[in-house]
Amino acid sequence: MIMSLRNLKSGSNLKATFMYTGIRVKDLEESVKFYTQVLGMKEKGRSDIEASGGKVVGLVSKEGGPELELNYYGKGSRFAVGYSTGEGLDHLAFQVDDLEKALEEAKKLGHPVALEMKTNSSKWAYIQDPNGIWIELFA
Amino acid sequence: MIMSLRNLKSGSNLKATFMYTGIRVKDLEESVKFYTQVLGMKEKGRSDIEASGGKVVGLVSKEGGPELELNYYGKGSRFAVGYSTGEGLDHLAFQVDDLEKALEEAKKLGHPVALEMKTNSSKWAYIQDPNGIWIELFA
Repeated sequence: MIMSLRNLKSGSNLKATFMYTGIRVKDLEESVKFYTQVLGMKEKGRSDIEASGGKVVGLVSKEGGPELELNYYGKGSRFAVGYSTGEGLDHLAFQVDDLEKALEEAKKLGHPVALEMKTNSSKWAYIQDPNGIWIELFA
Repeated sequence: MIMSLRNLKSGSNLKATFMYTGIRVKDLEESVKFYTQVLGMKEKGRSDIEASGGKVVGLVSKEGGPELELNYYGKGSRFAVGYSTGEGLDHLAFQVDDLEKALEEAKKLGHPVALEMKTNSSKWAYIQDPNGIWIELFA
């Protein structure tokens, strides 16, 4: 009943489909290293975007999974403005097999746990990426 | 050759899988309205997160597609700190059937185009969500 109502209310003519999330990074190789070597993502492709003077790297954890795009704006790009991480992006969430082991491994790689959360039935934790973006890890 | 090297370098023991993107929103219902009524996403579920004093709403464009989580921290939550959109999140990208029609429709719904980009072979544009998050539309 509630679902039908919700569907009815989605009456936009845009027919938009959410495709990927683009984060901005201050150092492209440092972020590629974090997402591939710490979180095990794979590079899907790289492009220079002439129109923005930027570079993008597409990353996925697995074929067909959600894509993360790293956006880098170098000197001369009109988008190379000051960087504050901000609150727009709350977090990026990654599932792991074993939370304790994952946190140990992340710590070894220079990304110690920043915050642990617990309820009666579940537990999750955050580490931070090289730009201060919160990465949620949950099992 | 390069792919093999890249795969070899992904030697993390974390075995993490990127699952979803969480954005922070200042007004939960206003953002639900934007993502469902303007961009046509569907609510997948809602939860109160006791541990954070927050509320979350999961949204997808289609079953099995990437998930967007709206995170709201109300009064009393230790995460209800000041909000600046920031640069951590560069943009969220949505594919549309017809870019011109989509931009017209978005404008009618109160979200005029904020930036148009063009190359010889492609064209895309941005509108902004209620919190100033950049939404890329491309066909």
